[in-house]
Amino acid sequence: MGLLKRTLQNIYPQDSDSRDRAKERLDQLALPHWALGDLMDLSMDLAGITRSIDPPVARKAIVTMAGDHGVVAEGVSKFPQEVTPQMVYNFVNGGAGINALARQAGAEVIVVDMGVAADLKQLAAEGKIINKKVGLGTDNIAKGPAMSLAMATRSVEAGIDIANDLADRIDLFGTGDMGIGNTTPSTAIAAVITGKPLAELTGRGTGLDDEQLAHKIKVLETILECNKPDPKDGLDILAKVGGFEIGGLAGLIIGAAAHKKPVVVDGFISSAAALIAITIEPFVRDYIICAHRSMEPGHRAMQEKLGCRPLLDLNLRLGEGTGAALAMNLVEAAVAILTEVATFEEAAVAEADK
Amino acid sequence: MGLLKRTLQNIYPQDSDSRDRAKERLDQLALPHWALGDLMDLSMDLAGITRSIDPPVARKAIVTMAGDHGVVAEGVSKFPQEVTPQMVYNFVNGGAGINALARQAGAEVIVVDMGVAADLKQLAAEGKIINKKVGLGTDNIAKGPAMSLAMATRSVEAGIDIANDLADRIDLFGTGDMGIGNTTPSTAIAAVITGKPLAELTGRGTGLDDEQLAHKIKVLETILECNKPDPKDGLDILAKVGGFEIGGLAGLIIGAAAHKKPVVVDGFISSAAALIAITIEPFVRDYIICAHRSMEPGHRAMQEKLGCRPLLDLNLRLGEGTGAALAMNLVEAAVAILTEVATFEEAAVAEADK
Repeated sequence: MGLLKRTLQNIYPQDSDSRDRAKERLDQLALPHWALGDLMDLSMDLAGITRSIDPPVARKAIVTMAGDHGVVAEGVSKFPQEVTPQMVYNFVNGGAGINALARQAGAEVIVVDMGVAADLKQLAAEGKIINKKVGLGTDNIAKGPAMSLAMATRSVEAGIDIANDLADRIDLFGTGDMGIGNTTPSTAIAAVITGKPLAELTGRGTGLDDEQLAHKIKVLETILECNKPDPKDGLDILAKVGGFEIGGLAGLIIGAAAHKKPVVVDGFISSAAALIAITIEPFVRDYIICAHRSMEPGHRAMQEKLGCRPLLDLNLRLGEGTGAALAMNLVEAAVAILTEVATFEEAAVAEADK
Repeated sequence: MGLLKRTLQNIYPQDSDSRDRAKERLDQLALPHWALGDLMDLSMDLAGITRSIDPPVARKAIVTMAGDHGVVAEGVSKFPQEVTPQMVYNFVNGGAGINALARQAGAEVIVVDMGVAADLKQLAAEGKIINKKVGLGTDNIAKGPAMSLAMATRSVEAGIDIANDLADRIDLFGTGDMGIGNTTPSTAIAAVITGKPLAELTGRGTGLDDEQLAHKIKVLETILECNKPDPKDGLDILAKVGGFEIGGLAGLIIGAAAHKKPVVVDGFISSAAALIAITIEPFVRDYIICAHRSMEPGHRAMQEKLGCRPLLDLNLRLGEGTGAALAMNLVEAAVAILTEVATFEEAAVAEADK
């Protein structure tokens, strides 16, 4: 049996007993009932995920996966493809948005080459990135599938591998992406899995104008027509209209779930990966924390499908894992509420009239 | 000249030159333009507030002010008044929500007795709280003014005093409140300053049912009819329908502005204090960061009047400074974006097509 299949067998829903025990304590905290709102819901999720009422979250990593996209030939991005490897160097040198925000959150940044269209072997040899390259960028999805089914499986299994390697030393995973053009495959994935129309889902990515946006929608129509992915088959969707970093992130999310660890899903591209992951195995949903609501219009429908209210809404549209890093502070806060706040009895505070 | 008047003379708008220099750098960062959204707006504010493109925010304090309210005699809260001093002990013992969340954010919690209806001298003598008691709770505002104009001035000046004392060792202030019954005076302040109807502004506080909510609105109508505060006069509003902790927080906010330091305003009660502060001196607005959107329905109108989009929206309704503590991580993140992210040139990354 392959790694993916074996991993899926280890994925169970959240533990309801741990959720109940967390709720019992949260109900007794010396504050008006559920007055810390969404963070208390998150506390319960963390208990259910980790099977603990003292959920470990201190050791944090953002796994930022990079890949290129043949569809950039269709003119769907304002930035040239060379920016993908340039940004990998920027991550490695600590100068990117994700480096700054991960430092603030006390999280490590782990950079993975899933399929950048450039030779990054030297960086991997120096131990600065992890090399899981599946190909030198995907094929142009406006002309045919992104990759073979075998490559799709390989990209997902690469993500699982990374989760397995990190599971001993990381409590809380965050997802991040880098890949010029990757809002296009992500929008295609969103359209297939949510069933919503492209006009509603498609956004400006890194900054398209009205005309460029109309063109992107046309390209996306072509992509769906020529590939016809099966909405029930996550690997088929990934192979036909996905990307290597998207597959890697889907695998990371699946791997985190198999290890019963929470995974903070960043923005639009990471959510496309999460949709692939829950299409492969719906129980994965129980391990996902949605970091933020991106400016991409399709993000709302994706998060509804994921069944997950985002923690932040700050008009972010960067990716890299930046929203996930910001949300990690809130995950820590949710644990602090569950583990550090006194109950009415412990604090000798009078309760409300019933 | 009194302390308040002298302090107001030191309040200027944000520095536009520092804002411009921050914007110049933010525009060049190696990311799609303004892709970190609201946090980049916040970076500019922090530069304008502190007159620096490396705004200091590392040394953080939540100042949680406590006071009691005579209006609890009208049955506007589910909790008994004794909870106010009990919660002060809980703060001092480190077991409250604010203690947990301030620890997570790396912020100190400073507890101030502005007017609790209990003897807390021992805690002050032990240096565990700051004693600025103006009275043993306000008078019942459903029957007359909360306090004299002299007491209102004294409570605001107590807050300024605290800001002055802390200014040497604190970069970033956060506001917090504790006071059974204090959503009622806060709603009255909101009604006077925003001009919106009570039915739109009044909420369930710590958990009123429908009947109790209808009663609270009636009490609020009585409060406004019998006191008739002058919407243009912050001290008059504070004296007639305010509270000691609300006055102290207004003073803290004014004091932070005079020291050119950012102040993260917590929820509903802190926003009432901020409205008092900007009514006294409109330039104070430039120093306010709104932490979150509370569940109290009036909060939206208050934040619109403050001219400030909240950073978080997590269905919180606790107060104590909990939302401010959570938002402090985002303030640090905004500084990290401004100071730690490389430009296109520094990172040698290709820019977008224009």
